[in-house]
Amino acid sequence: MAENITKEQEEELIALCAGACAAKYELQKLSTEEKNKALNLIADKLVANSKLLMEKNALDLEYGEKKGISAALMDRLTLNEKRIEDIAEGLRQVAALADPIGEVLEEFERPNGLKMCKVRVPMGVIGIIYESRPNVTADAFALTFKTGNAVVLKGGSDAINSNSAICDIIKAGLKECGINESAIELIRATDRAVTTRFMQMKDYVDVLIPRGSKGLIRSVVENSQIPVIETGAGNCHVYIDKAADTDMAVKLIVNAKTQRLGTCNTAESLVVHKDVLDSVYVEAAKALREKKVVLYGDERANKAFADAETASDEDFYTEYLDLKMSVKTVDDIDEAIAHINKHSTHHSDAIITSDTEAAEKFLNEIDSACVYWNASTRFTDGFEFGFGAEIGISTQKLHARGPMGLKELTSYKYKIKGNGQTRG
Amino acid sequence: MAENITKEQEEELIALCAGACAAKYELQKLSTEEKNKALNLIADKLVANSKLLMEKNALDLEYGEKKGISAALMDRLTLNEKRIEDIAEGLRQVAALADPIGEVLEEFERPNGLKMCKVRVPMGVIGIIYESRPNVTADAFALTFKTGNAVVLKGGSDAINSNSAICDIIKAGLKECGINESAIELIRATDRAVTTRFMQMKDYVDVLIPRGSKGLIRSVVENSQIPVIETGAGNCHVYIDKAADTDMAVKLIVNAKTQRLGTCNTAESLVVHKDVLDSVYVEAAKALREKKVVLYGDERANKAFADAETASDEDFYTEYLDLKMSVKTVDDIDEAIAHINKHSTHHSDAIITSDTEAAEKFLNEIDSACVYWNASTRFTDGFEFGFGAEIGISTQKLHARGPMGLKELTSYKYKIKGNGQTRG
Repeated sequence: MAENITKEQEEELIALCAGACAAKYELQKLSTEEKNKALNLIADKLVANSKLLMEKNALDLEYGEKKGISAALMDRLTLNEKRIEDIAEGLRQVAALADPIGEVLEEFERPNGLKMCKVRVPMGVIGIIYESRPNVTADAFALTFKTGNAVVLKGGSDAINSNSAICDIIKAGLKECGINESAIELIRATDRAVTTRFMQMKDYVDVLIPRGSKGLIRSVVENSQIPVIETGAGNCHVYIDKAADTDMAVKLIVNAKTQRLGTCNTAESLVVHKDVLDSVYVEAAKALREKKVVLYGDERANKAFADAETASDEDFYTEYLDLKMSVKTVDDIDEAIAHINKHSTHHSDAIITSDTEAAEKFLNEIDSACVYWNASTRFTDGFEFGFGAEIGISTQKLHARGPMGLKELTSYKYKIKGNGQTRG
Repeated sequence: MAENITKEQEEELIALCAGACAAKYELQKLSTEEKNKALNLIADKLVANSKLLMEKNALDLEYGEKKGISAALMDRLTLNEKRIEDIAEGLRQVAALADPIGEVLEEFERPNGLKMCKVRVPMGVIGIIYESRPNVTADAFALTFKTGNAVVLKGGSDAINSNSAICDIIKAGLKECGINESAIELIRATDRAVTTRFMQMKDYVDVLIPRGSKGLIRSVVENSQIPVIETGAGNCHVYIDKAADTDMAVKLIVNAKTQRLGTCNTAESLVVHKDVLDSVYVEAAKALREKKVVLYGDERANKAFADAETASDEDFYTEYLDLKMSVKTVDDIDEAIAHINKHSTHHSDAIITSDTEAAEKFLNEIDSACVYWNASTRFTDGFEFGFGAEIGISTQKLHARGPMGLKELTSYKYKIKGNGQTRG
């Protein structure tokens, strides 16, 4: 799997991961004040270096233009003064959040007198593999640093100059605060083989979080020997129950589908109770067509609203991230739940109904991170949940599910105090 | 990686995992009473079928004898009436434990009126790969079933007849209770290629827990595409601080090393402050030699107590699971902590001291699941922690750390109630 990685690359990669690993024990001893001071100082430093950052960013943009990357990607890649100010503001906001490290999660005493204390601690070293957007570099650092972790970043090769410049400024800020600069390490090699080898660094890295496309995430899940938190893919459903209110349904569906097309919490599929095909569904379909959404319906749905394409089985598994939406007709709520549990990526799914019993059944039986009753799926987001930050949205069941904020970047340990207890 | 798996084996494996996956939605709807009734009925059924179980077990023992497996392994493999009664008692104890499913972990309301409820739910399908002991078959079923999960088991080929018989009795019991028999599935193929393929069944299995030798665990960590909870390896340390009481130190060290040799919470290494080499350490060393423990000491340690072997660097990384113990001398507590954090498997480590400041430093800075002050490392155990059960001891930081009981076999989801909220 590690073909093509040179001896120099291997040594460099190990040195970098080992550096982060050595830094983690210093980081977990930092006080909240020390961490916040560093975050604020680095925020100022990023703004003060806006010109340099934009110069480095221009190299990436130039290369991107030559390579012919899409306008959308070029936009995501671009840094300007406003965006650099936003990045800095993000760091300041993380500084303002409560520090979860040291929180006592449980305290209890055993009959033999052992005093048990379960306390929140950093993970150690967090690896993050991500794509284009250079703001993730600063963002990921802020969240992992605030939680006492070291971070090893592997950004997209499209943004390598921007990411390197941001990382260097962060390192300079850490140094100024007397903090180990290896709190952040950036893998600057752009070879895929280096990334694959990085996924095997289980002796140094405690958890790996991929952020980006489905392909990137799949590659990490399949190749990593480090524990992974899978994020991102969202084939989200809205189920129009037979007791759905038409106005609410239209409003929620249009919001869930069109408020922002490219996010993982955007709705991709409508599931419609057969009794409301000709009423609620038709109104929703009209409103969606007005927003230029192309519907891919099954036979019954397209009979009710003909201005639609025919859905293939594949459509029901598709996260369009586009002006498209599949439509499935069901006979009852059980069929709706079975359909959603089969096709969903277990991210976010919603029911629209005024029937409390149906709603409770849906909330209980849908196997997704976030299940909504009469609200848009677009709320699945660390900020909307009040976490004040977000490193990603987990679609797995291990460790964290749904939006991940600071707490989700921590582990715990047991501190146990005795007075000579032995096991009999 | 999946070489040698036949088309039939592949189809069978998929059918079995898909069966468990389909069963999970039924299992999560079972009430606590239904689950407990089934566990108690299955316990009775196992005892009632003791004769059959022992007959099937005899086939495994016969095969083991031919193969020439060790006396220790033959003992672990053996079922008799007492052991079957113990297995049944284990099931009844799990029935008596509180059901964690449905527990509300957090409830809060957002400024926009969204009512958020974070609730404990089953994982879904748990895969467990384990070695010889047939009691694990019943034990793993009890814990996963009580938590509303389906389980797919892959036991050791040495115990295949015993495991099959136990699984069949459990299935019969489930059927009698009207519960989907696929709540438990056993992979009966003994080819290694089937096990490797099983580790790739990420579309069906939510989490994979290996229980057994270091080699088994490494193989799962390296090959699995399913999220893994790493368990087991314990290179546990006891640090004799300069303020250690001699009597307590001798008592704790002898207990931690010799109370049971083959467990992961057994101490494997002594770390000794140089000031107490000639006093506390010598007394501990004498007591250990009386218990036939061979010490592998560094130069300073062996000067203080000569009846010892010379430790190699390798010794400090070794989990002996035997009458052996390494000894490292340090100049101060910082060196002790650095040595332990470097060589430990981050399972359980202890300090013996009457100095509160030293103890707090050790509890804070040792990066292990369980850190003890004046108590034996042997207490790292789900029962000793009061969990009433244990599926294993996690040595990773993701999801669960230390002893894992029922709660550690669960995930959570967010149920969100709105009244028409859309995102602006």
